[in-house]
Amino acid sequence: MSNHAEILLCEDNSSDADLTIRALKGKNPSANIQWVKNGEEAMDYLLARGSFEKRPIEYKPKVILLDLKMPKVDGLEVLKEIRNHPETKTIPVVILTSSNEKRDIKSSYEYGANSYIVKPVDSQKFLDSVAELSSYWLSLNKPGY
Amino acid sequence: MSNHAEILLCEDNSSDADLTIRALKGKNPSANIQWVKNGEEAMDYLLARGSFEKRPIEYKPKVILLDLKMPKVDGLEVLKEIRNHPETKTIPVVILTSSNEKRDIKSSYEYGANSYIVKPVDSQKFLDSVAELSSYWLSLNKPGY
Repeated sequence: MSNHAEILLCEDNSSDADLTIRALKGKNPSANIQWVKNGEEAMDYLLARGSFEKRPIEYKPKVILLDLKMPKVDGLEVLKEIRNHPETKTIPVVILTSSNEKRDIKSSYEYGANSYIVKPVDSQKFLDSVAELSSYWLSLNKPGY
Repeated sequence: MSNHAEILLCEDNSSDADLTIRALKGKNPSANIQWVKNGEEAMDYLLARGSFEKRPIEYKPKVILLDLKMPKVDGLEVLKEIRNHPETKTIPVVILTSSNEKRDIKSSYEYGANSYIVKPVDSQKFLDSVAELSSYWLSLNKPGY
């Protein structure tokens, strides 16, 4: 468990999460990543509640990687909560999903996603995409806090 | 003049614009770029008005690179207009500026910027940053249209 994650990965599928974490660590072995399995855990992490209540809330991730189809709270609902809460409203959110549906892409931007990436099916391409997105959001982009 | 730009570059400083266009073309020689010098021209391009009235409005750029400090309409005002107009509200906007001030960064995200990049002073680093951001927004990111 990380109290100071640079990347918050919100993904219910554990094999996709494993692959994503491997890609993130491959590019940047010291990357500090917190994996949460659903939207409820994501909000608990971000707002330092529940099992994360001892976490200092002022440490915000540089990027949240958010899956769309998840149990309990759906990705778009999580995004809405993130954008509505003063502590989390300016944290960059990248939707990382297998859905290539126009409706999902459009809704994600309307709900305030910063970026939308379709998970490549090919695993080498998946690794390359995750490496590229982590370099962009951890090094090039300036978060607003 | 491009009617089908993938990148709309909104920058009042012509030497910065030259350098940015060179970096974009260096990475991707066939990249279709429209350069506008101020916020008014940016909105004219996006809404196919004024000198762009013959442009088909349905061709939207994959990304808008927006400077903050510009004459006539300031970058944050342009961002607000982009986010308030149904034709342009989901177009990705990257703030590309020399300002590293917390207040500018925070306001940009609050106004709906997708990303914020501080122009590196070193020109090789500037070229590398522009190459990285164009690869991200032209190839990896999916726009919502």
